[in-house]
Amino acid sequence: MSKTKRSFAARLDRLAQVAVKVGLRPAVGQQVILTAPVEALPLVRLITEHAYREGASLVTTLLDDGQCAVARYKYGHDSAFDVAPDWLFAGMEHGFKNNAARMAISGENPGLLSGQDPARISRAAKARGLAYKPVSELITSSAINWNISSCATLPWAKMMFPELSDKRALNKLWDAIFKASRADADDPVAAWTEHNNTLLARRKILNDKRYSALHFRGPGTDLVVGLADDHRWAGGLSEAANGITFNPNIPTEEVFTTPHYKRVDGYVSSTKPLSLQGNVLEGIRVRFEGGRIVDARADKGQAVLEKLIQTDEGASYLGEVALVPHSSPISASGLLFYNTLYDENAACHIAIGQSYSKCIADGRTMTREELAAKGGNHSNVHVDWMIGSGQVDIDGITADGAAEPVMRKGEWA
Amino acid sequence: MSKTKRSFAARLDRLAQVAVKVGLRPAVGQQVILTAPVEALPLVRLITEHAYREGASLVTTLLDDGQCAVARYKYGHDSAFDVAPDWLFAGMEHGFKNNAARMAISGENPGLLSGQDPARISRAAKARGLAYKPVSELITSSAINWNISSCATLPWAKMMFPELSDKRALNKLWDAIFKASRADADDPVAAWTEHNNTLLARRKILNDKRYSALHFRGPGTDLVVGLADDHRWAGGLSEAANGITFNPNIPTEEVFTTPHYKRVDGYVSSTKPLSLQGNVLEGIRVRFEGGRIVDARADKGQAVLEKLIQTDEGASYLGEVALVPHSSPISASGLLFYNTLYDENAACHIAIGQSYSKCIADGRTMTREELAAKGGNHSNVHVDWMIGSGQVDIDGITADGAAEPVMRKGEWA
Repeated sequence: MSKTKRSFAARLDRLAQVAVKVGLRPAVGQQVILTAPVEALPLVRLITEHAYREGASLVTTLLDDGQCAVARYKYGHDSAFDVAPDWLFAGMEHGFKNNAARMAISGENPGLLSGQDPARISRAAKARGLAYKPVSELITSSAINWNISSCATLPWAKMMFPELSDKRALNKLWDAIFKASRADADDPVAAWTEHNNTLLARRKILNDKRYSALHFRGPGTDLVVGLADDHRWAGGLSEAANGITFNPNIPTEEVFTTPHYKRVDGYVSSTKPLSLQGNVLEGIRVRFEGGRIVDARADKGQAVLEKLIQTDEGASYLGEVALVPHSSPISASGLLFYNTLYDENAACHIAIGQSYSKCIADGRTMTREELAAKGGNHSNVHVDWMIGSGQVDIDGITADGAAEPVMRKGEWA
Repeated sequence: MSKTKRSFAARLDRLAQVAVKVGLRPAVGQQVILTAPVEALPLVRLITEHAYREGASLVTTLLDDGQCAVARYKYGHDSAFDVAPDWLFAGMEHGFKNNAARMAISGENPGLLSGQDPARISRAAKARGLAYKPVSELITSSAINWNISSCATLPWAKMMFPELSDKRALNKLWDAIFKASRADADDPVAAWTEHNNTLLARRKILNDKRYSALHFRGPGTDLVVGLADDHRWAGGLSEAANGITFNPNIPTEEVFTTPHYKRVDGYVSSTKPLSLQGNVLEGIRVRFEGGRIVDARADKGQAVLEKLIQTDEGASYLGEVALVPHSSPISASGLLFYNTLYDENAACHIAIGQSYSKCIADGRTMTREELAAKGGNHSNVHVDWMIGSGQVDIDGITADGAAEPVMRKGEWA
């Protein structure tokens, strides 16, 4: 941390530089497709500036407005909810296939759609997921360099700090974002190089171990997550098929891999609320048998959870397992962000749905069937939820069935 | 005009209703692609609401930010200026081919790019025009229903009223927009029905006359504009190929048709400044021989004008001629808008570049070559500029060469 107090403008500019120079790393002559909430416009302008300075040929921004999204639920005819902007996604697919880079700014209102009909939310999400699938596959397979960074917005800040004034809530969220994104470091780029090296070392240890499964135990949790055949651990730096090395998530604290979708058994309880489709789900408890979810309950958001799992066949199976120490900076902040980009980096987590082909050796060039044979799940959804805490132990199960401590009370063993 | 004073919010809502119910008229289940400057967000939200009320299935808005557009000129590498968002235009083409409606809100800063390198502006405009061509053709041929309405923005208002405070300038522009768009009428929809009928009657007279040419005479102007074979006059209501009747422009006062691109001779002087590619051109004087521009000068913006004409072969020929009485409400306001949507509706005008196939009988189903044989011009640009005033007379030239008065001192004869 710097000893001199920086202005907000200076900190925002440093965050933009982290997003561009650490996260996205656009090549000279590369187009950039940027998506952001409209409230993020000041950050969008700075990211646009730095992307051009780095040589981007054209930065095109798609700004989302929460009020316009809610208007469909308030005024739309019932037939409006099985429709997605397929034309826009077709355009994005065209762009990524022609090597455009993809920058996303996250800052959406976690409670945007609370109170709206869960059936309509689910229909709209399903139509969107289906239409977005070709785009999503190009991103999750890292055909191109991509990055998600974030921007404080008032609805998000007020969800986190309902007791504070608007201004104080926003400032507090900005402080957390600048800190977690290492934008407050004296030399943010150097700080990220060091952090990436730490994650790389952790990946190497886990890759060398070649565990066949992980065993999670904690309050309300006793879950064995089989790992995919020839799985590879990822985290921090990633290499895109276009040859560009980039940081997909700012911030990031996780190392993650692909579970074997048919070898997951036991029960698990969420340790943090989950923001999903404009709703907040709490107290999720799920039971798996032979990889499949056979029972799913939530203290809050049961209908949204059920609809999620019913999206398609793959939505009943796992597509990701990720390890994050309980002492990670985001966890240590003690804050609940209601935003997966943050909360997933504060706790070990699993994700329902689509798996990452890059987390299986040579997976990027495999067909869907070849990936499935290795254990890689396929779905139109990918939803992370947090199952780690200071009370959770994790064992690695070796090929011969022996158990080794991987984490104890949420920390690397 | 209503006798009770309406709130700004009420007037803005009525403008949104005019844009949707008079202008675009989305069908139940139709998607809408909306483009707007980011400053128009409050109007975008209302248009979105009314489009959903009318049955639109999904309204997707692309918000443009002037600062981001300027950032390319300030920070981009030189290689960045031959690039366009081809991926986005490919998506829009996909959308319109699948019957999405197209709504545009105009409110851009007329002087956004003043001071930037005209060569770069021209390269960027050329790349954009080329990539946008398939979309532009779907719009100009009215494959789908479309509308351009407008929104007051501060840079635009300050260009018009530099001597006023920000607030007064904005209010004055809003007043002019509400009035010209008939949003202030007691019943805006009924007012538009009446206005559309007036334009329709004018079209009928001109269509029955079947003039072979129009002869413009005024200060600095002596120009014969041959009309395309089998030309048809349009204006006000239009019918899209998808069967929807709509009003392409809000406001609109013009009736227009397609000139014969090889039968334009003489010289013409602009009667109003022209806002083009973020620059303002003044004192345009152009000479035509056999349809082609052989000399083009501007007191201000000469370089931008030259680059425009050099865009492609068709940019040296006319694609539209339009008649607007000098007493039209927009002209009567006495305001110069630096915005073609307004200024073209205050004066007779011609346009360089692409012609409207719908202004030739059966033109929509003709090939480019068939249209050219009738006199329809083809280009990647379409730029209107104003040549009418209270001092301009227009004769209609009949098939046998006789001259009949069409307009005298800017008014219908």
